[in-house]
Amino acid sequence: MAKSLRVLGFAGSLRKASTNRGLLRAAAGLLPADMTLEVFDIAPIPLYDADVEAAGRPEAVTAFREAIRGADALVIACPEYNYSVPGVLKNAIDWASRGADQPFAGKPVAFMGAGGGLGTARSQYHLRQVCVYLDMHPLNRPELFVPMAGQKFDGDGNLTDESVRPRIAALLEALAAWTRRLGG
Amino acid sequence: MAKSLRVLGFAGSLRKASTNRGLLRAAAGLLPADMTLEVFDIAPIPLYDADVEAAGRPEAVTAFREAIRGADALVIACPEYNYSVPGVLKNAIDWASRGADQPFAGKPVAFMGAGGGLGTARSQYHLRQVCVYLDMHPLNRPELFVPMAGQKFDGDGNLTDESVRPRIAALLEALAAWTRRLGG
Amino acid sequence: MAKSLRVLGFAGSLRKASTNRGLLRAAAGLLPADMTLEVFDIAPIPLYDADVEAAGRPEAVTAFREAIRGADALVIACPEYNYSVPGVLKNAIDWASRGADQPFAGKPVAFMGAGGGLGTARSQYHLRQVCVYLDMHPLNRPELFVPMAGQKFDGDGNLTDESVRPRIAALLEALAAWTRRLGG
Amino acid sequence: MAKSLRVLGFAGSLRKASTNRGLLRAAAGLLPADMTLEVFDIAPIPLYDADVEAAGRPEAVTAFREAIRGADALVIACPEYNYSVPGVLKNAIDWASRGADQPFAGKPVAFMGAGGGLGTARSQYHLRQVCVYLDMHPLNRPELFVPMAGQKFDGDGNLTDESVRPRIAALLEALAAWTRRLGG
Repeated sequence: MAKSLRVLGFAGSLRKASTNRGLLRAAAGLLPADMTLEVFDIAPIPLYDADVEAAGRPEAVTAFREAIRGADALVIACPEYNYSVPGVLKNAIDWASRGADQPFAGKPVAFMGAGGGLGTARSQYHLRQVCVYLDMHPLNRPELFVPMAGQKFDGDGNLTDESVRPRIAALLEALAAWTRRLGG
Repeated sequence: MAKSLRVLGFAGSLRKASTNRGLLRAAAGLLPADMTLEVFDIAPIPLYDADVEAAGRPEAVTAFREAIRGADALVIACPEYNYSVPGVLKNAIDWASRGADQPFAGKPVAFMGAGGGLGTARSQYHLRQVCVYLDMHPLNRPELFVPMAGQKFDGDGNLTDESVRPRIAALLEALAAWTRRLGG
Repeated sequence: MAKSLRVLGFAGSLRKASTNRGLLRAAAGLLPADMTLEVFDIAPIPLYDADVEAAGRPEAVTAFREAIRGADALVIACPEYNYSVPGVLKNAIDWASRGADQPFAGKPVAFMGAGGGLGTARSQYHLRQVCVYLDMHPLNRPELFVPMAGQKFDGDGNLTDESVRPRIAALLEALAAWTRRLGG
Repeated sequence: MAKSLRVLGFAGSLRKASTNRGLLRAAAGLLPADMTLEVFDIAPIPLYDADVEAAGRPEAVTAFREAIRGADALVIACPEYNYSVPGVLKNAIDWASRGADQPFAGKPVAFMGAGGGLGTARSQYHLRQVCVYLDMHPLNRPELFVPMAGQKFDGDGNLTDESVRPRIAALLEALAAWTRRLGG
């Protein structure tokens, strides 16, 4: 029997009621039988500063790196700010990518996103370019863009639009198959 | 006589000896006669969090917004991390863009960047897309990409490669003309 | 009284019943009082080949260049094929851009597009990058993305969804203002 | 023993002395032991027109589709025109992608490119986005950008700069490993 796939998820917004955090909570209830999902909170990761790094890697960054390293695949719930990746999300990736033995290399990854007029598509395409440098392997399809998030989540960021759930489930199934194909 | 153009510059790296901060220092010595340059340090701007914002805009963000609003044009010295805009730079832009009367709207802007295999080109093209949303007007040319920064700056981040200076001067001249054309 | 603005439009599809040609026909009926629109058909422009070019610029390309040169601003109706600019549209731009005195330089331009899941947004952002090299000045907003074109145009490619018309009119108004601001 | 990998290469320029055609000729002399390379000439592929397609797929397009379908992986030698993919290259891809059973799906692909100030990097990143829709799997690294092509190829488009050859060989080795990992 195939071993279970360990997926690490993180959301690119620090707001408690974030709809992108909500997408990850929804995903946790829609996992394929052979997949587990751990969600990592990037909030404690400070602003990247090479002078700080030279004095020692912050604990939160070390924890993030270990969580990435331990995963077979990643899921990033990615908001869109100003037609690109939120600074807080990119900052967490920047920190984790620094130094020898960067943990993203070779990992499969899937994106989902809520918000913006195009459901965070512009942000996701920028993230795909980031993945070239990180040597990650993004899932091509399905893509998951959830525009008009204000009508699809409640005030706590919980998904209320039931039509989105099967799309999340399909994304996770495709990620499992992609991860298996890559030998994960 | 035309009034002097006030340009605001900021660099997307927090490191003291940053080569991109060095580009701005070099620019300060290469200004056209009718241009002044103020450099803003984005280091005090915290990570963007909508819950924090709801409790009141941080002072550093207010100062950044005021500095932008008071400028006729911007110059962004933009590193490249992981083939895109550094998180710390995008984060500062994200904060400043929030709320009514966002200060970037309608401003001309020029980019310069040191580092990376392509002189931060990939990062600058992502920033150009950000400018569509912010309704800014990027200078098309010259572009200023400075690859192999390790050979062109000293250990304090001061520009030592003299061939770069006339390219910075040309960029500033073109920005002045572009700003005048836009009615700045 | 300000002189009338001459706008040149072209669509990136060769199909007779193209919805993007339809967008341009709709635009022709929605012009501001001070704007005229000429539509250029790129169909006669052959595949770009530098060996052909060396033997003499094709007549259709010369005509296209003259039409561009004579315009105060451009409007490009841009389909999306495979998440980018259609080859036939890019090919026409490639031809016209060749040689001394390239005619796109300095021109304001607006984009509109019908089709694709995102209304040709991905294609339009690639075109914006093309405009950096061509030294054109794209309108930032409004953007005009028309997804699900099958429900908004008839079988001849005529626009039937009335909600799109005021958006086209707003785009043309904004292009007029942008062109005036640039001194056109 | 593993079966040999069949790679299909094509260049995005129609010019006889194209340096990108030259890159493919160089590649043919640098293949790993378990790889064969067929080069397809896209010159006979006409401009895409859905009305033409409705009347029957052109023979050259059928041949291109069959060649793609028969390959385990692709190599695209990609010029850069106006900061993006050449129209003639995109047009060939557009044609081949049309209709049921599109032949690109699931294939690994590597890019190389000569020309432009950045060695066709901008064009290659646009192609990577095209691959998302086509469901192809681009090699992340090494990337192969060959700027200042005029100094590295002779007048017939033959590679003369010997420092480029080991980089091509490394790209082909990495493509072989990537193709094996994907189960090709």
